Amino acid sequence: MSDNLDRILAANADYSADFGDKSELAMPPARKLAILTCMDARLDPAKFAGLEEGDAHVIRNAGGRASDDAIRSLVISHKLLGTNEWYVVHHTDCGMETFTDPIMRDLLAGSLETATIDENGWRNEGSGPGSKEADQIAWLTIADLAQSVRDDVDRIKSHPLVNKSIPVRGYIYDCKSGRLEEVN
Amino acid sequence: MSDNLDRILAANADYSADFGDKSELAMPPARKLAILTCMDARLDPAKFAGLEEGDAHVIRNAGGRASDDAIRSLVISHKLLGTNEWYVVHHTDCGMETFTDPIMRDLLAGSLETATIDENGWRNEGSGPGSKEADQIAWLTIADLAQSVRDDVDRIKSHPLVNKSIPVRGYIYDCKSGRLEEVN
Repeated sequence: MSDNLDRILAANADYSADFGDKSELAMPPARKLAILTCMDARLDPAKFAGLEEGDAHVIRNAGGRASDDAIRSLVISHKLLGTNEWYVVHHTDCGMETFTDPIMRDLLAGSLETATIDENGWRNEGSGPGSKEADQIAWLTIADLAQSVRDDVDRIKSHPLVNKSIPVRGYIYDCKSGRLEEVN
Repeated sequence: MSDNLDRILAANADYSADFGDKSELAMPPARKLAILTCMDARLDPAKFAGLEEGDAHVIRNAGGRASDDAIRSLVISHKLLGTNEWYVVHHTDCGMETFTDPIMRDLLAGSLETATIDENGWRNEGSGPGSKEADQIAWLTIADLAQSVRDDVDRIKSHPLVNKSIPVRGYIYDCKSGRLEEVN
């Protein structure tokens, strides 16, 4: 059993021991919100946006991008569970700004082990095996942070399965300050 | 300005006013963890698993499924940011258990407005327009909760871009108790 697993199970025991009326929460989000944001470890959407359990759908992936899978989740969120206000939140110092599709494909072709980055860029440390499967994947990297927010808001708003009445707002979360700044 | 937006910005002002040394957190997750779970509003992974800002990547979508996009995120998480222990967490009373691809396609073909569910199943309330685009999408619904966890753990472990040294554990979160139960 890993140290992480021990800690997770101990924390979960504490959390569930004082679960209170959270057992009565309904499936549809009470505040009818959905937030799409990055998987980045520094971001806690419940904390930075003030969400309690039961309030909002939270969708997260590498970059907080409006991928096909994020759109799948958002459409389910509105169509079946009634959210009607959506937020896209990218953030400063995002890992998705540090590479490009060709860089990722080269790295993964060489090795599946974790790579390292320095002033010369990404470099494989581990040895093989690698895989060319990465060539088939769009990694959804970010070249310009504000533009990536605008692109994703636009992609969501213009998707044929998205109800046009849903407001979709874009924000950048600043990892240095914890503040949300709107992107227009 | 929506009531939700007012509340989000007020909560964010409070959070960032007392940001402390979180401004110094590094990009790679300190505990080298990644958790894939559902977007469900009742789930707060930071709370149910005891995660602080900076500890772990959190990937969320409808169902917590090992979609192509979740795999994209997990591969970035290990290859570039060094996580080496992954958890898949589905949950009881999941919305993904309430429908099938044909149901979702019929509903969306009829209307993009939110549908309702009762003992007779899902039903459109709103009128059109709808869209046939839903026919192109695998909605990743869940017929058997424990099996969906096993399937997703297996899909991740057997993916050609996933380093075979990474342990991937599967859990079900009980929305009535807050407890995590392992799936074997």
